[in-house]
Amino acid sequence: MTDPVLSHALAHEAALVDALIKLVACPSVGADPAMAQGMEDARSQIEARLDMAGFRNRQRLQPGDHSGQPAIYAERLDAPGKPTLLVYAHYDVQPADPLDKWQTPPFTVTERDGRLFGRGISDDKGPMLIALEALSAFIAVEGALPVNIKLLIEGEEETGSPSLPGILEEHRALLKADAVLSADGARWLPDLVALNVGSRGNAGFEIRLQTAGQDLHSGRYGGIVRNALHEMSRLIASLHDASGRIAAPGFYDGVTDPSTAEREEISGIPFDENSMLGPIGGAAHGEAGFNTLERLWLRPTLDVNGMWGGYTGAGSKTVIPNEAFAKLTMRLVPGQDPQHVQDAVIAHLEALLPEGATLEITGERGACGAYAVPGGHPLLCAASDALAQTTGTTPRKVRIGATLPLTEMVKRILGLDTVMFSFALSDENFHAPNEFFRRSSIADGLAAWVCILRKVAARDPADFVPYRPE
Amino acid sequence: MTDPVLSHALAHEAALVDALIKLVACPSVGADPAMAQGMEDARSQIEARLDMAGFRNRQRLQPGDHSGQPAIYAERLDAPGKPTLLVYAHYDVQPADPLDKWQTPPFTVTERDGRLFGRGISDDKGPMLIALEALSAFIAVEGALPVNIKLLIEGEEETGSPSLPGILEEHRALLKADAVLSADGARWLPDLVALNVGSRGNAGFEIRLQTAGQDLHSGRYGGIVRNALHEMSRLIASLHDASGRIAAPGFYDGVTDPSTAEREEISGIPFDENSMLGPIGGAAHGEAGFNTLERLWLRPTLDVNGMWGGYTGAGSKTVIPNEAFAKLTMRLVPGQDPQHVQDAVIAHLEALLPEGATLEITGERGACGAYAVPGGHPLLCAASDALAQTTGTTPRKVRIGATLPLTEMVKRILGLDTVMFSFALSDENFHAPNEFFRRSSIADGLAAWVCILRKVAARDPADFVPYRPE
Repeated sequence: MTDPVLSHALAHEAALVDALIKLVACPSVGADPAMAQGMEDARSQIEARLDMAGFRNRQRLQPGDHSGQPAIYAERLDAPGKPTLLVYAHYDVQPADPLDKWQTPPFTVTERDGRLFGRGISDDKGPMLIALEALSAFIAVEGALPVNIKLLIEGEEETGSPSLPGILEEHRALLKADAVLSADGARWLPDLVALNVGSRGNAGFEIRLQTAGQDLHSGRYGGIVRNALHEMSRLIASLHDASGRIAAPGFYDGVTDPSTAEREEISGIPFDENSMLGPIGGAAHGEAGFNTLERLWLRPTLDVNGMWGGYTGAGSKTVIPNEAFAKLTMRLVPGQDPQHVQDAVIAHLEALLPEGATLEITGERGACGAYAVPGGHPLLCAASDALAQTTGTTPRKVRIGATLPLTEMVKRILGLDTVMFSFALSDENFHAPNEFFRRSSIADGLAAWVCILRKVAARDPADFVPYRPE
Repeated sequence: MTDPVLSHALAHEAALVDALIKLVACPSVGADPAMAQGMEDARSQIEARLDMAGFRNRQRLQPGDHSGQPAIYAERLDAPGKPTLLVYAHYDVQPADPLDKWQTPPFTVTERDGRLFGRGISDDKGPMLIALEALSAFIAVEGALPVNIKLLIEGEEETGSPSLPGILEEHRALLKADAVLSADGARWLPDLVALNVGSRGNAGFEIRLQTAGQDLHSGRYGGIVRNALHEMSRLIASLHDASGRIAAPGFYDGVTDPSTAEREEISGIPFDENSMLGPIGGAAHGEAGFNTLERLWLRPTLDVNGMWGGYTGAGSKTVIPNEAFAKLTMRLVPGQDPQHVQDAVIAHLEALLPEGATLEITGERGACGAYAVPGGHPLLCAASDALAQTTGTTPRKVRIGATLPLTEMVKRILGLDTVMFSFALSDENFHAPNEFFRRSSIADGLAAWVCILRKVAARDPADFVPYRPE
């Protein structure tokens, strides 16, 4: 027998799609100041929806210096004695460029073959409206939510959430909860029932290597002085050893080898490496002793993202470059401290620097540690049970190789763990032209959200105590 | 007692400077089509001067397709039984950019502290007029030249002499001579009496390394695929071994180690490495077992002149680049075949290419072998004797690390050896703002040119036979 709350929600699917079309029509590109009205329109639509659903204490959480995008807060705390979840989503979207690669206009939703196309529809407007619709259905059918809910819908996710730490710090009391349930953070493969249980951190910086005061002519100086590009190449080539392991001493400090259980969990995943690497024309390559998924989820990386020096124009110029540049970023795994890792790489580079050359470290990007949900976390258990019940399949535990700063920020600032419960799928072209959202994900998502809220309601708030601060 | 021809020439120094000022005022920048009139004006002035001096059979040698700049030819063959020299110079100059770095207008000669400033005055209008004045003085005083002279004054030296091989081929009979005496090819240090006896060759190409069909996101692919910049760095780092020796097998084929005599000649040169490297802020570095001058003159090099890939804009982008580019050039020494050397480097790179990566060779530049005047060449002996007599010091034999395509072209096409007998000095800012020519070099040069012509006149043409074709 179908849950009456789910029945209600499913009966409103067409209205949800209408609301989604209207929300996508607001070009809420936070990175583009020219689209400020689109941001405001998106906020207004969401706020109206929250008011209509019966949320309370709705307010905008302004970034401390008021220069960023406000987050929307609302709550419904009518389940005394039940756990409190902070539900996260974001209303900003990626820029639509390159526009000429879109088959249909990015801010006008078009449906083709069961797919709804539009910028931000999969990341994260569709998944956000699924969560809000499930919550609204509870209030409509039962007059209350089964658990206490605090909503936090931010507007800077696509620009790295620069204001979020400040907002979390300032509204620590308001945002107090037992755990975070995120409507953002895509599922992986369409045909795999899975839960994301971890993400890698990141850190990065730029280096400038100098070998002389000016570019030199190879006829006058060739063979008698150092060439900055040779030295830079030597440094970059030294970062990995022949086995693909990162050679900087201390880089792996704190990293533990995958446990037998982790390796078995991963090897049990029906994953076809060729279907992942074939389309991008790349061959599998990485640290010896690990397979592709272990490398992607459990092992840290160090990549040069850009490198340049000397003459790069048309034709030939016989210059000996006196400086060379490289941008480096790392992906980090649990146990690694971003600053320690960065220091280790810099120390390695400096140790190999030849006499007379100088190395300058510039352009550090914001660093962020890896994140993993503790294995026995009650919200993770609830999520797993909900998916098992609504899909008939026990979800696999998967990770992502990318970085979700939110997870690390709420853990660090509020002490809270996050479970990703988005119904976007990783093939839905987010951050790319022709972003789409599967219409079938709406029903799947509504069922799962109704179910997880019931599962959490069945939990004793004390279950969360071991995972919370204080 | 001063040679009456030299006395006559020295008496005309003021007229020579006037002519030089007038010639520099023609902006003969061959690279700039907008300066075609400057080129024509320079040609006209030179032709008028040759006619006035009494040269004969004057003509323009047009490039085969008439798209290039004509060379000026003239001759005076009134020394039967004497050697015939092909005297080389060029009337084109480098562009004057950057104009804002000039202290005085580039095409208006200004004299300061014994230095005449102007574009092309040192390279090569001053040295050319010295040669023409010495020749004119012979005709004026003695009614004839002491040796047979064929003049070849080209207009494409600064753009790589692209038409010269065709002109040499087409006018093989007209240009028949015993040797080439060049008014181009600067002296080295102002305080060192020296003769350039060799120059390095060059070759070069561009490479493109590809590891995947597209750039990849390090969150989704970091650690599981190759990074084109890592592979490119590894290739570039592999080009030299730890001792600074080029590691490509076959690269040194044909290269002989410096003889004891060559090393002694070099070690006898009063050369202060610090005075060369200090101003450019570089440290001495190169192939182990050789000192700086040996590296610069006698050893081949391989330099990366430019390298790029991935994201090179502002800020950070977590991309795994799928392609990387590098421009490479080599300086070659006698014994090396440019094509063989280039093939050796490419084979080395291809041998180290990992599976799944591809390497494309593009943008080959024109290659040119090294050149060295044979040690006992009669024109070299005459030049050495002339400098010894006019300076009181036996000249050192020096080389240059750069490439002079003319020397290789006339050797290859006409079978002739070249002696560089310019009176420019290497510190005179040619190819740079504030180019200048030392006024004192005029008298030095006139004396040396009058003297060398007498020394050659004292030679039996048979002395040249072993060094000539057929």
